[in-house]
Amino acid sequence: MVGISDKCTEDIARERKKCSFSSTELTHFWDGGVELTKRRKLLENYFLSDPELKSSVPLEYLSHKEKYERSIKLSCLFFKKISNWLEHNDTISAMEVYQSVLGGSLGSAVLKDGFPFAVHYVMFIPTIIGQGTMAQQAHWISRAWNLEIMCTYAQTELGHGTFIRGLETTSTYDPDTEEFVLHSPTLTSYKWWPGGLGHTCNYAVVLAQLYTKGQCHGIHPFVVQLRDEETWMPLPGIKIGEIGCKLGFNTVNNGYLGFDHVRIPRDRLLMKNNKVLKDGTYVKSQNDKLTYGTMIFVRVIVVRGVAASNLAKAVTIATRYSAVRRQSELKPGEPEPQIMEFQTQQYKLFPAIATVFAIKSSATWLWDVYNSVTKDLDQGDLDKLPELHAMACCLKAISTSDANQMIETCRFACGGHGYMTSSNFPTIYSSLTAAVTYEGENTVLLLQTARYLVKAWSQRDVTSATITATLKYLSDFRPSDIYQPWSLTMSNLAEAFRLVAAGKIKYCSEHIDYLIQKGYTSEDAWNATSIQLTQIAEAHCRAFIVDTFVKETEVAVVSEPVRKVLVQLCELYSVYWLLKNVGDFLVYSHLKISDVDAVNERLAELLAAIRPNAVGIVDSFDFHDDILDSALGAYDGRVYERIFEAANKSPLNAEPVNESFHKYLKPFLKGQM
Amino acid sequence: MVGISDKCTEDIARERKKCSFSSTELTHFWDGGVELTKRRKLLENYFLSDPELKSSVPLEYLSHKEKYERSIKLSCLFFKKISNWLEHNDTISAMEVYQSVLGGSLGSAVLKDGFPFAVHYVMFIPTIIGQGTMAQQAHWISRAWNLEIMCTYAQTELGHGTFIRGLETTSTYDPDTEEFVLHSPTLTSYKWWPGGLGHTCNYAVVLAQLYTKGQCHGIHPFVVQLRDEETWMPLPGIKIGEIGCKLGFNTVNNGYLGFDHVRIPRDRLLMKNNKVLKDGTYVKSQNDKLTYGTMIFVRVIVVRGVAASNLAKAVTIATRYSAVRRQSELKPGEPEPQIMEFQTQQYKLFPAIATVFAIKSSATWLWDVYNSVTKDLDQGDLDKLPELHAMACCLKAISTSDANQMIETCRFACGGHGYMTSSNFPTIYSSLTAAVTYEGENTVLLLQTARYLVKAWSQRDVTSATITATLKYLSDFRPSDIYQPWSLTMSNLAEAFRLVAAGKIKYCSEHIDYLIQKGYTSEDAWNATSIQLTQIAEAHCRAFIVDTFVKETEVAVVSEPVRKVLVQLCELYSVYWLLKNVGDFLVYSHLKISDVDAVNERLAELLAAIRPNAVGIVDSFDFHDDILDSALGAYDGRVYERIFEAANKSPLNAEPVNESFHKYLKPFLKGQM
Repeated sequence: MVGISDKCTEDIARERKKCSFSSTELTHFWDGGVELTKRRKLLENYFLSDPELKSSVPLEYLSHKEKYERSIKLSCLFFKKISNWLEHNDTISAMEVYQSVLGGSLGSAVLKDGFPFAVHYVMFIPTIIGQGTMAQQAHWISRAWNLEIMCTYAQTELGHGTFIRGLETTSTYDPDTEEFVLHSPTLTSYKWWPGGLGHTCNYAVVLAQLYTKGQCHGIHPFVVQLRDEETWMPLPGIKIGEIGCKLGFNTVNNGYLGFDHVRIPRDRLLMKNNKVLKDGTYVKSQNDKLTYGTMIFVRVIVVRGVAASNLAKAVTIATRYSAVRRQSELKPGEPEPQIMEFQTQQYKLFPAIATVFAIKSSATWLWDVYNSVTKDLDQGDLDKLPELHAMACCLKAISTSDANQMIETCRFACGGHGYMTSSNFPTIYSSLTAAVTYEGENTVLLLQTARYLVKAWSQRDVTSATITATLKYLSDFRPSDIYQPWSLTMSNLAEAFRLVAAGKIKYCSEHIDYLIQKGYTSEDAWNATSIQLTQIAEAHCRAFIVDTFVKETEVAVVSEPVRKVLVQLCELYSVYWLLKNVGDFLVYSHLKISDVDAVNERLAELLAAIRPNAVGIVDSFDFHDDILDSALGAYDGRVYERIFEAANKSPLNAEPVNESFHKYLKPFLKGQM
Repeated sequence: MVGISDKCTEDIARERKKCSFSSTELTHFWDGGVELTKRRKLLENYFLSDPELKSSVPLEYLSHKEKYERSIKLSCLFFKKISNWLEHNDTISAMEVYQSVLGGSLGSAVLKDGFPFAVHYVMFIPTIIGQGTMAQQAHWISRAWNLEIMCTYAQTELGHGTFIRGLETTSTYDPDTEEFVLHSPTLTSYKWWPGGLGHTCNYAVVLAQLYTKGQCHGIHPFVVQLRDEETWMPLPGIKIGEIGCKLGFNTVNNGYLGFDHVRIPRDRLLMKNNKVLKDGTYVKSQNDKLTYGTMIFVRVIVVRGVAASNLAKAVTIATRYSAVRRQSELKPGEPEPQIMEFQTQQYKLFPAIATVFAIKSSATWLWDVYNSVTKDLDQGDLDKLPELHAMACCLKAISTSDANQMIETCRFACGGHGYMTSSNFPTIYSSLTAAVTYEGENTVLLLQTARYLVKAWSQRDVTSATITATLKYLSDFRPSDIYQPWSLTMSNLAEAFRLVAAGKIKYCSEHIDYLIQKGYTSEDAWNATSIQLTQIAEAHCRAFIVDTFVKETEVAVVSEPVRKVLVQLCELYSVYWLLKNVGDFLVYSHLKISDVDAVNERLAELLAAIRPNAVGIVDSFDFHDDILDSALGAYDGRVYERIFEAANKSPLNAEPVNESFHKYLKPFLKGQM
């Protein structure tokens, strides 16, 4: 087989020619400006041109142990290269570089199944900053930042996740020796999941129930040494290993950890907030909400860095493939059409494209509010924290669950070929789907937002003067009983989403009250309404996303052709989700049964309008081929040559006859077994 | 760590005690009778007690190549054992044994990622039977059945799947030598996907465009030798290998195959139907529809053997885990509840249980009709073939897409632990999700059913006397404009599903006509309506499933407690899917906006009613622990001990310090890299 030509296929080249807008301009919009595009490309070129970071046999062919060994090798080379970059460049801050590597998609081109060093940067260092005293920060951050030690963050236990108060690991203060004694009283108290914990880290922040003077003071963070710095052997009393194979992240080295009465000095308790004095006296901090920060920060990152980014990858692959793949017939006797001509195919792809942009605009809002609230917090102002928390919860849940479902739809849109690892769908899906559960399980998060909404509903009259922007529609709410004509304008669509959210919040609030009147406890009434409570959080979130997306299309500094694309996507997002929940719109908005056909027609029109620009739009995500890492989705559209090339990287294909033939198959077929 | 106790946990034992019906009785119902349960267990005990078929290191820890080698070793041992069984037992037919192994779930306990020998039995032998002359059958079936040769079936090509007419491989008759010349004119014409093709098989049925006397006669099947029987080397002109890693089925050895002018004797064309004479004259068969048989057969198997079976596994795991896992709090101060107490959790589990039973009852209908139609076909009667084909299409599509989504919901219901391979969710999902695409891509299948429905609608008055049972509701159809009170009886629910299907079919038919009147070609009108056309196939299928399930609950020979459980599940299935598509019911059935709350209430009541029996119901699927293969779902509920035991099977955990520490991590941390 000859090498792959460097020319784009005709089909995909033609798609680019007929595009009505500048894909490069949309890239700048997507990145947040020309300058940010430039910086992203600078980093990509620096790291992705290094042959040392490439491997001839793809990761998936290795054994689990070999994957780990490769991950350590590549991580060391890669993070060394990052240090080199930071030493010689000051145009891009260290923070930005680490974010590209660990939060963005650059790192996935080097080690697609995740880094065992990630938690060291994402959780360990921020926790020391957030919870350590100045002295503790000086000591631990210096050691961690200079990579003298490799650290992780151990909170979740085998039997305990979401409900932090249920953690069982104990840390009991012994005033005689001025030490804490860490202990795992049960199997369910073993720490479980921390990235890098298995074999890669020698220190961890460990969350444990603090006991002193016979009293439990709840969960506190302790810095614990796990392994000897020279021999890497686990220290006495430390029971440690990895948790085994998973659906994805198999190079992250997630680990378990048990303690058998392990003693650590008193100053290993991170004491910026709460303290234990030498004699064992517990001193409580003034301000507990400060510890929310890291948790919300991670959710903010998940919305754009994980949900939007993985969905953007998936839909780029499926859209390009749909421009190249020809199959079936639309009209008898004509050549097989590009599969993107089929309306059902457009319906799989284009709502996913719209959802990427929708998530992105909400993620920008979330990031801005996070930064503003963090500043307020530093000044002791906690007013906007509940809104930020409520929006971070529902946006994390909805963005990851939309992306989860739509990535699979994109895979199905590629037929059987999406099932091959060389399509990269298996890795994209396994990376994203973990986010449905991690950093707050989605159902739990939706119920947290719902609690905030039900409370807001009950206070809507009292607080209407001071109500926050995302809840204003609740005090504005008037039921939809009075007839108003339906129209397909964006402002009416956005209003309909708000009416649905408000109507459902009202319904749930009344339903809870009704059950309480019937004799339910408030907890039972809440639980008996909870399916619908998750739905109000979703409805609120959709209304917010539509609003935010509409505003963005209005204020974005872009040319008219680009604005037109954004407006079409915004409308498609709204119409698509309206039709997915059309029952709610019939019940709670001004939509009437006789209006539904027109919405279906509009959907069909929008799909047809977006069709000619589809490849151009996904091009604007501007994924480097090494980051996309997909035989189906490469920029040049040379799908079949790339699939074939990928198959021949299988070590099984290195020999024409596998030795198992001689050992087993031949004796079996000859009746000699 | 001590070994796992053989006692069930208290939580799960208590669940079984409070069950209101006999789980064993429901098992007999599920299997199809006491006798079938007995035979199933007989086979399970015979095969699953053999230590030779067990491995200490789970499959997922091996490299891709090692997985293949293990799969050949285990396949040889296992199929040898099957032969031994068949030699010494005549209580269970060979067909039934192979179906348990390859179509049922028994085989998954031996090799969970699939057998490279499967296509030999499932496709090669049936094709020879269906398409070979008596002489060809005598020769090839004898060789294949006696395992002198190992064979596969090569149809799909790299660039061609669903649209069979588009296949490119050619087979050109040369009358001078009385041979066919097989050739792959392009890269896209390479055969792609056949199981076992990579390195395991030495013969294949190859589908190719038959050319003789300068004319193309379309796709025909040829038996082709691929590898030398002694050396296993590919024969001259045969380009062969495996297609590389996939999301699942990594022990199946899916392969690719290209031909460079490969010559085979004339009698390798399977000539039961069409023939090529020595001089190259083509003789066409009378009856082309006979070749439909195998295709429909496989879809019938997929509905129960793949969709229902994998969903049953997933929901067994998630339900048992939900009885053991305790998390969060329902009431302040009380111990953490079993997570099955949460309404949102019940909503994830119980509709999936109901769907398993619903799919099963439709699968039974499909199997019976398949057998009856096959008999008719043998007598030249093709009348019922279109209905069978239409129902096999939509049931395959809906059952696999429901199972696909619900298996993931079951995984999410287990939080992070569902992400671990030891939960078995990753394998269950990867096995099932392939079925969304294989044997007819779901969207394509739904559109085939839709075509049948639109045609039936246009003929409903003409054919009302002879209309088949599944379409009777179309000739009975009266629009829902006349007010009728809504009620939550099963007969009204079933009627509502039929009204939705009929109303949507009517709407689509009229929409297509409207577009044609506007000037669209009929093909363009079809394409521009196709999103909704897939929805009518789904609506028709749901109405059928509800009807069939209702009838089964009425006629099943079971005790009243078991019937009560079945009735609850049937009602839950209906209410769940009604609420998922409540907009359609508002538009097309007698459901009014004011009735929706009552349906929501009924959903909540049904979940609460099923709650006490949930573990008992999934117990009735009676999965052997080795078949379920899940640390979260084992019968004894000892979740945490089993997770821990599974983690410690990881070869990485065999040494406290991995060698990559000395090679890379230590130099890196010491600044010596």
